[in-house]
Amino acid sequence: MSSLGALKKWMETYRATVREDYFHFLRFKSISTDPSYANDLRACAEWLKSYIAKNTNMHAEVIETEGYPLVYAEDMRAGPDAPTILVYGHYDVQPVDPLGLWQSDPFEPTERNGKIYARGAVDDKGQVFFAVTALKAWKELGKELRVNLKFCIEGEEESASHGLSKSLPKLKSKLKADTILVIDFDQFDEKVPALTFGARGLMAFEVTLTGSKGDLHSGAHGGMAFNPNRALVELLSKVWDDQGRIQIEGFYDDVVELSEEEKRLYSFHYEKESYSKEFGIDAIGGERGRTLADNNGFRPTFEINGMSGGYTGIGFKTVIPANASAKISCRLVPNQAPKRIFELVSSFLKKQVEPGIKIQITNLGGEAAFRGNPNCALAKAVALAATEVTGKPCKNLMCGGSIPIIASMVKNLGVEVVGMGYGLATDDIHAPNEHFDMGRFEKGFLTLGRALELL
Amino acid sequence: MSSLGALKKWMETYRATVREDYFHFLRFKSISTDPSYANDLRACAEWLKSYIAKNTNMHAEVIETEGYPLVYAEDMRAGPDAPTILVYGHYDVQPVDPLGLWQSDPFEPTERNGKIYARGAVDDKGQVFFAVTALKAWKELGKELRVNLKFCIEGEEESASHGLSKSLPKLKSKLKADTILVIDFDQFDEKVPALTFGARGLMAFEVTLTGSKGDLHSGAHGGMAFNPNRALVELLSKVWDDQGRIQIEGFYDDVVELSEEEKRLYSFHYEKESYSKEFGIDAIGGERGRTLADNNGFRPTFEINGMSGGYTGIGFKTVIPANASAKISCRLVPNQAPKRIFELVSSFLKKQVEPGIKIQITNLGGEAAFRGNPNCALAKAVALAATEVTGKPCKNLMCGGSIPIIASMVKNLGVEVVGMGYGLATDDIHAPNEHFDMGRFEKGFLTLGRALELL
Repeated sequence: MSSLGALKKWMETYRATVREDYFHFLRFKSISTDPSYANDLRACAEWLKSYIAKNTNMHAEVIETEGYPLVYAEDMRAGPDAPTILVYGHYDVQPVDPLGLWQSDPFEPTERNGKIYARGAVDDKGQVFFAVTALKAWKELGKELRVNLKFCIEGEEESASHGLSKSLPKLKSKLKADTILVIDFDQFDEKVPALTFGARGLMAFEVTLTGSKGDLHSGAHGGMAFNPNRALVELLSKVWDDQGRIQIEGFYDDVVELSEEEKRLYSFHYEKESYSKEFGIDAIGGERGRTLADNNGFRPTFEINGMSGGYTGIGFKTVIPANASAKISCRLVPNQAPKRIFELVSSFLKKQVEPGIKIQITNLGGEAAFRGNPNCALAKAVALAATEVTGKPCKNLMCGGSIPIIASMVKNLGVEVVGMGYGLATDDIHAPNEHFDMGRFEKGFLTLGRALELL
Repeated sequence: MSSLGALKKWMETYRATVREDYFHFLRFKSISTDPSYANDLRACAEWLKSYIAKNTNMHAEVIETEGYPLVYAEDMRAGPDAPTILVYGHYDVQPVDPLGLWQSDPFEPTERNGKIYARGAVDDKGQVFFAVTALKAWKELGKELRVNLKFCIEGEEESASHGLSKSLPKLKSKLKADTILVIDFDQFDEKVPALTFGARGLMAFEVTLTGSKGDLHSGAHGGMAFNPNRALVELLSKVWDDQGRIQIEGFYDDVVELSEEEKRLYSFHYEKESYSKEFGIDAIGGERGRTLADNNGFRPTFEINGMSGGYTGIGFKTVIPANASAKISCRLVPNQAPKRIFELVSSFLKKQVEPGIKIQITNLGGEAAFRGNPNCALAKAVALAATEVTGKPCKNLMCGGSIPIIASMVKNLGVEVVGMGYGLATDDIHAPNEHFDMGRFEKGFLTLGRALELL
């Protein structure tokens, strides 16, 4: 029997137990952003550590941080000459409100139409648990790893990874690896598997324009005082040309265009028509003449996330506000430094603002982009395994969002990165009625279990 | 003794009583916007009616409306061939919050440095009361009017004049006059008196742009979905050219430029330098090449009073909001119809908005401008009296704001309009520590008392 066959048969035999253990994991109310769940997070970490220690060949421990602890595990028996893979995931979950919209208790996993409904069903307990289950099957099937394997499952991914982030310098040797496998991503679509090779960086700031010491009456001052709301719309409208290209001097200087080979490596996640249809979006942004995938994964953006100025309550108020402001974030691509982009943006805005209007720009922080390599050994093994499991070639994706902790690990630990996962945009993660189905859970289990053998 | 001398001597004799009665009037908590003061407003109206009836030659009554009552008074003994003047003012006041910023009880008039501090000290109880006092002096001095005189003192000017506005059609014959004298305005500066000859109109609306059904993650969708905040800044930035001229097709079509004679009639209220200094405003708006007075009084504007879209709380949130919206009001000049301007603005915005972005425009109401005539008999009499009282030539002003109830009275009653008053921009009306000084109160008394004789 092939190795995949053995894994399938094992799952066939132990499906009920796997499901019972997965449900147990889901019952911990590990909401990291709300301090009232601190005990639940600790209990969850302890349980996961014990489960890994008891059921896999990995040595497991709970590592304290300034925030919630990490569950760390390793099997280093392949020896110093074998490559080392660090699996990253998280056991904490998003809050559950609005609770009234859940059709069943978010912390009592419930099956409906073949789907498991619970907070964390996918993100990230479901995906962490299929990985742990793969290692359990390996142990029970008596198989030995040819690579060194480390697991780092943190408890604060949903609340800025404070503890892990602070601990990185002192955990450098403990977490040392050749490649990180981040198990917190989506497949391409319901049928087609995917790997994700990086995420964009971020540079966030706030700009505030001031025209006067206090709000002014728009009758008494209208036609005399320059309205900061007008100054703001005129200023921000200068950011783009009519092709959607950002006009900030030097903004694209450090952007490296994809090579022809890279272009072949990455998949178009969306066609315009299907994207418009799926999300009900008729107006497409980005740079004209580029694909959606290109603009979402490989090009920087300038996004006005929030804007406010003057009266926005019921009815109207004839005011010329003293201030108008906008919260803005730029998504960055590799080679763009957040600090340099902040300087370019600041200098552009200060130069372009209406004379006499005071401008204040505050840096709200940032993180560089990171990018993996679809040709690395781990990527090839996982892609091949995914194809064997699903019968479909694996697509390569780039994440348009930003994952500061992974960017930070890639930079601090000097490692390659590969992202995998069997989530879907329709799983309602971070929303009421989050759900996963056991079919995709098992595909994840089989893919990782098989990939470890192909390495 | 000249008539002015007689009025001065009368005030000299009765100053203490006048002040006592003025303070009594100020003690009523006649805040019209807050229903919990309903009894105070009624008591105030009854007191004022009785005071006028007892102390002047006018017959006085309280007229019920759908809102708070009007105090109406008249002396029609000059006969049907004599002109009729309708004095307009209001006995209601603005709320007093934040109460903590008042240095003395807003409803217990207190003198500090020669100034009377109280809510309504100027606006409009102080100005109404110097007018009533002028009529009291006329009675006590045994003088008879050569014009017919009506007083209409309403109780809802600070809360949209609902009652008076609704009652206008049925009060048409009662309020019939040749000229309205609105006693609710400012002088030019501390030393120079002024008359005000109209106010701009207003057309208010809200525009909302929608890009998607719900808020989107700016990582997952950035570069793909067109951000409604960007659509809003790009759309609204198209409203003006670089000379500050409004680019909406047909917007200026109905605007009539001032004749050379009119230009000579009106005063520049502000020089750029003194305006900038007084209000701490360095950026000047309006159409380039026109004076501040021109842009404030005689040109229409397009003012973004409020703008909102996306996340505006603490920190930042990487969101592409579903919607962005703006509350906007256009100040209008005579001959511009609010309805027509709404149509022009709507059609411009719909034509210019980013394709695919949904646009919704809601009319929030409006009122046309009105303008009086500095050459009418009443204007000439009041201006001459003001000059005799102050020793300075009287300036002619235009109010940049809008006074819907006066616009409505001018239109419904078909009358001329003249505005007078001895307020100053520094009197803190509508703010904590509103104050008036008895010197300006007495100038108002003398000006009206003398003007009635010059008619």
